Amino acid sequence: MKIVYVVPGVMPPAEQERRLGLLRSWAFPGSEVDLKSVTEGPASIESCYEDYLSIPATAKLIVECEKQGYDAAILGCAGDPGLDAMRELTEKMLVVGAGSNALLTAAMLGHRFAILTVDDALIHTCYDLAYKAGCREKLETVIALNIPVLELNKDREATFKKMVGMCKKLLEERNVDVISLGCMSMGFLDVAEDLTKALGIPCVNPSKTALKNAEALVGLGLKHSKRAYATPSKLREGTVKSLDELYIGGK
Amino acid sequence: MKIVYVVPGVMPPAEQERRLGLLRSWAFPGSEVDLKSVTEGPASIESCYEDYLSIPATAKLIVECEKQGYDAAILGCAGDPGLDAMRELTEKMLVVGAGSNALLTAAMLGHRFAILTVDDALIHTCYDLAYKAGCREKLETVIALNIPVLELNKDREATFKKMVGMCKKLLEERNVDVISLGCMSMGFLDVAEDLTKALGIPCVNPSKTALKNAEALVGLGLKHSKRAYATPSKLREGTVKSLDELYIGGK
Amino acid sequence: MKIVYVVPGVMPPAEQERRLGLLRSWAFPGSEVDLKSVTEGPASIESCYEDYLSIPATAKLIVECEKQGYDAAILGCAGDPGLDAMRELTEKMLVVGAGSNALLTAAMLGHRFAILTVDDALIHTCYDLAYKAGCREKLETVIALNIPVLELNKDREATFKKMVGMCKKLLEERNVDVISLGCMSMGFLDVAEDLTKALGIPCVNPSKTALKNAEALVGLGLKHSKRAYATPSKLREGTVKSLDELYIGGK
Amino acid sequence: MKIVYVVPGVMPPAEQERRLGLLRSWAFPGSEVDLKSVTEGPASIESCYEDYLSIPATAKLIVECEKQGYDAAILGCAGDPGLDAMRELTEKMLVVGAGSNALLTAAMLGHRFAILTVDDALIHTCYDLAYKAGCREKLETVIALNIPVLELNKDREATFKKMVGMCKKLLEERNVDVISLGCMSMGFLDVAEDLTKALGIPCVNPSKTALKNAEALVGLGLKHSKRAYATPSKLREGTVKSLDELYIGGK
Amino acid sequence: MKIVYVVPGVMPPAEQERRLGLLRSWAFPGSEVDLKSVTEGPASIESCYEDYLSIPATAKLIVECEKQGYDAAILGCAGDPGLDAMRELTEKMLVVGAGSNALLTAAMLGHRFAILTVDDALIHTCYDLAYKAGCREKLETVIALNIPVLELNKDREATFKKMVGMCKKLLEERNVDVISLGCMSMGFLDVAEDLTKALGIPCVNPSKTALKNAEALVGLGLKHSKRAYATPSKLREGTVKSLDELYIGGK
Amino acid sequence: MKIVYVVPGVMPPAEQERRLGLLRSWAFPGSEVDLKSVTEGPASIESCYEDYLSIPATAKLIVECEKQGYDAAILGCAGDPGLDAMRELTEKMLVVGAGSNALLTAAMLGHRFAILTVDDALIHTCYDLAYKAGCREKLETVIALNIPVLELNKDREATFKKMVGMCKKLLEERNVDVISLGCMSMGFLDVAEDLTKALGIPCVNPSKTALKNAEALVGLGLKHSKRAYATPSKLREGTVKSLDELYIGGK
Repeated sequence: MKIVYVVPGVMPPAEQERRLGLLRSWAFPGSEVDLKSVTEGPASIESCYEDYLSIPATAKLIVECEKQGYDAAILGCAGDPGLDAMRELTEKMLVVGAGSNALLTAAMLGHRFAILTVDDALIHTCYDLAYKAGCREKLETVIALNIPVLELNKDREATFKKMVGMCKKLLEERNVDVISLGCMSMGFLDVAEDLTKALGIPCVNPSKTALKNAEALVGLGLKHSKRAYATPSKLREGTVKSLDELYIGGK
Repeated sequence: MKIVYVVPGVMPPAEQERRLGLLRSWAFPGSEVDLKSVTEGPASIESCYEDYLSIPATAKLIVECEKQGYDAAILGCAGDPGLDAMRELTEKMLVVGAGSNALLTAAMLGHRFAILTVDDALIHTCYDLAYKAGCREKLETVIALNIPVLELNKDREATFKKMVGMCKKLLEERNVDVISLGCMSMGFLDVAEDLTKALGIPCVNPSKTALKNAEALVGLGLKHSKRAYATPSKLREGTVKSLDELYIGGK
Repeated sequence: MKIVYVVPGVMPPAEQERRLGLLRSWAFPGSEVDLKSVTEGPASIESCYEDYLSIPATAKLIVECEKQGYDAAILGCAGDPGLDAMRELTEKMLVVGAGSNALLTAAMLGHRFAILTVDDALIHTCYDLAYKAGCREKLETVIALNIPVLELNKDREATFKKMVGMCKKLLEERNVDVISLGCMSMGFLDVAEDLTKALGIPCVNPSKTALKNAEALVGLGLKHSKRAYATPSKLREGTVKSLDELYIGGK
Repeated sequence: MKIVYVVPGVMPPAEQERRLGLLRSWAFPGSEVDLKSVTEGPASIESCYEDYLSIPATAKLIVECEKQGYDAAILGCAGDPGLDAMRELTEKMLVVGAGSNALLTAAMLGHRFAILTVDDALIHTCYDLAYKAGCREKLETVIALNIPVLELNKDREATFKKMVGMCKKLLEERNVDVISLGCMSMGFLDVAEDLTKALGIPCVNPSKTALKNAEALVGLGLKHSKRAYATPSKLREGTVKSLDELYIGGK
Repeated sequence: MKIVYVVPGVMPPAEQERRLGLLRSWAFPGSEVDLKSVTEGPASIESCYEDYLSIPATAKLIVECEKQGYDAAILGCAGDPGLDAMRELTEKMLVVGAGSNALLTAAMLGHRFAILTVDDALIHTCYDLAYKAGCREKLETVIALNIPVLELNKDREATFKKMVGMCKKLLEERNVDVISLGCMSMGFLDVAEDLTKALGIPCVNPSKTALKNAEALVGLGLKHSKRAYATPSKLREGTVKSLDELYIGGK
Repeated sequence: MKIVYVVPGVMPPAEQERRLGLLRSWAFPGSEVDLKSVTEGPASIESCYEDYLSIPATAKLIVECEKQGYDAAILGCAGDPGLDAMRELTEKMLVVGAGSNALLTAAMLGHRFAILTVDDALIHTCYDLAYKAGCREKLETVIALNIPVLELNKDREATFKKMVGMCKKLLEERNVDVISLGCMSMGFLDVAEDLTKALGIPCVNPSKTALKNAEALVGLGLKHSKRAYATPSKLREGTVKSLDELYIGGK
């Protein structure tokens, strides 16, 4: 099976390489994994505005990937920016939302999970994501690390230490039994297993989880429901001929 | 007070004119109303994809309006595309979501409302919108007219007749006591009052409601909460200097 | 348009005058605003019992107002005492509940609001009100000032200071982004705008909000749904001839 | 133990006698049961307005009953009019709400219950009652008999036949496994046991259930929580000396 | 009426005697109460595993009780282990779940109750129980005493003191107005009335409540709904002749 | 990785063989899959009673599997009988519930799913399962095939035809976009892919899904949370030495 991990922001090639290496090391034998990054978009996604900014270019890249014959594309941001749009535009290729997948996986392992997100400003989006994922009932609370995404990896040790401290405090105060990391950059820090050990409860890495769920769903022959995510009516009914014609004006 | 109605899609000037005329006829004395349309974007919004496509250009236009000193901007699409982003980017000017406002207004008038949207494919987005608006509990059901947005106004009589027929059937089957029209083009058909008469229950026009609510909120001196919709952290902390720098690459 | 603000308790004429003055200063040009107070009822409403005590006389006054040709009546208590009854008895005149309106307005501005009510004993009624209003999902918590209603205005400065202190503490502890004042006497203290400034999040004044929403709804030509609030069947079917005949015995 | 059944409307003495006879035939040995009716109020309660009309006189009667040493009072209307107020005003005597008790009893016997109420206009109040009772989750639907309360007993046979017909239709269409009768006059028709046989699922009689629950709760030594239903603050703090002083004006 | 209290664990005869004595002292005149204990099963139920272990032998005992002509059986564990199974296997005899009954009784007395359970490990089962009972909305929180069930009665004084301390702390922190004891051994400590006095809010004893509710329901002629709890299809359709044949293998 | 599929009922060896063959054909390269069946228990699980009957022997088998070094065990019944108990008793080996996993997988693919279960009597257990899984919000409805489990495979063609007919009717009436099969025997009919084609929406096979999710979770290094599923306190604290000692009496 062929799976593509799509980065919806502009990422330096070295970091793309590093992430692809991790993904390939995580894959089952028999899974071919590629990584593609948009060439225009936000540097990182830390607000609703940047979330939306990422969608147009990413949608085009996703549609391109479907044409290239991938079995599944992973939308590589824990906020699932534009997941419903990506699913409207694809039919033969499964599109996996890394964010909602991580939450549903957390729901498989305990009674009440928490999300550790990057910034206070994103807390409300995590509740909405859990609602859209369908598992709002098990989301106990959301806390924020408040380290900028692009600095998470600057001092991996310090980041990890802050994560452990915040989660330990949370466990003392609230009846939480699973943690889900709410950011792909946190996922690619590759600290979830160490965090699981440090905290004594499972910690879900959204980056790795998205890959394993994509493999599982492709293995199951399942794709997102087109009754749920219908092709835009202008395309469906031939009013426009291509994706590009849906956008008027511009250059 | 100065209010601007922002059309998040590319609209023919004549239709812009017509809508502005209606808005001004609806305004309280003392309200100055303008209408601005983006110059690039989708022709109409009938899918999640088109919803997202509309956001980048609209956000810039909204920010522009704030600089021009408007007291409030109405985001003129009943799906509230990017409302949270628009609110992240503004502080001195209120941004009103026509979609969520119509639903909260419906909630003021009865026990259980229904949304009449344009296309089956948008039904799920209406449930999500009611959840985000905070009044999901009173949303009894969503039905779709299944007439393309751009054809709603071609035969106003036929559209109205279909609306009445569908709503009457709904009232026989379900315990619904208010109807909210889920599309601005339906709103500017200006049929809500006739529908109210034909059905015997209040019918909420999202276009007119957005204007009256904007006037009310400006009159109250209220703006959206910046604790709820924080300025993107890169802007807040000066990592980038302008909105444009949040987008990398492109032409 | 003609709007009447109805006080469902017995209020000294000077305070009636003061409140009417504020209401008129808040009105849009073109709105005629009157204030009427019942001549019998509780001095203030600080319990469910007093809430119910206020209803019979207020209902009659509201029905009287409808006959006098008002476009809308504001039920002037943040607990909406008997709102459903008032709506059962009126058809041509809109009745606005100041309590539920304030909550739905709070829902328009953020993700999670809190109510600041007057007394611990009223906390549970605030949750029920939010449920009946339809926006229970966005109500994060309710806190009480614990100053008797009739003393709120004795030392306006002290009251304001206590409000600021309690809200600041709340903002440190909970993820709240809008505050709604749960009492009309708080509303007519006219401190909401100062509170908004002091806290940095919007503070909803139920007194002013009820007026602006009434103006907006009358402007929209909308009334409460008679399918939702049916005329009592004995009146509807002519079993009794007048409101008075619904009550047997008494003097 | 001494239990009083309080009728919150003006009821002919013969009907009072008949109901008391039924109540006494239902009581456990050792329970003394009395019935008291207000001497002023609505003839029957079929709207929110009549619901509220009944409260002031009933509250006084309930307070009187507490002074007379009853262990429990049953508020004899399935809408629980003013239950919270009655509980605010009593401390030594339990007050039981016939409406909420019937719903909680229905919840003990199956997964999803329905309420059979008297009039379409009361359907929404049944949902609110289930919410206040705390068992909204198990309320599947509400249907209305649409026979005036005062005519229910005119042709007992015809009423029973209509009830059976409506419930059988409901069971074919919905996954309902318990029925609760939403009106005391239905309860005193004493048809619940026949209905249980005719339908093959339990049918809850609110009149009889209120009595048995009152006996059970008195037997348990339990009363309503004063932390939940605080004495009105003016009484609690001595600002007024008596119930009457809470009401100003009037003759 | 004849009621049997069924202990789903292996209990020393002296303790059986003691509990039966309490039950009989609590019964209404006219109620005959017996107690039966399984002869195999867990010593106490403090985990989901022990909960399930208790079911097969208890189910057989319950079926035996039905044959012996009891009107009602009380399933004597606050977790309601296998209640739905017991109800599937009985038709003429009511089966009462002590756990869900206590919660619904708590719901009758206030707005928000808490459960005091025995062990942190059982907290999540209390939330599920409230959901199955249908009153999850009123369950504010669950706290655990963390004393082993078999030691609760060793130092009754110390246990009571710990209960009071934990509940007082809870009342300071949370808006709770009723406490329900989440364990039958707590119930048979017979401290609920003292706890009610010490805390000033009602404290529900599940052991006594189960008895009083059983008496009330038998008095009402109500049994659990067979539409809700159908006889297992193999028995219903005669594929197997007896309960034993449903279990294959074993010695 | 080593995964064991545990059948919690007594299954003929030929059927065990057939199912193991399917499982191995579905596995990723590198996954070793075994199947073990209890030697005592119900022939099939079609009631709550049979569900509970299966647990004691299955729990022992699961604990045995953990000792044998499996990485994960799949509890092979779509009702997840005793899943929480199995997780209490294991720490090094993941236990996967086939039922809850299928529902969470359905939630990944659309907005609203339905469960197709085997018998009307199991409908209510499906709602409870969705609640425990955490995705009750997305469960639109449950329908039942009403074919006995042991006859599902007698005429595979007829079973498939009935499934298609029922689901097509459902799709006409309700807004459902994913179907989950609520029974492992349905899963091992291996018709989900044909059903997906026939209906045009994804159909989730719980048998295959459990395997792929187990592989994914083992690949992720994740196990169920011991904070959520604590070891029974008697074992944890050494009051008893072995699982057997938790059960007293018996032979």
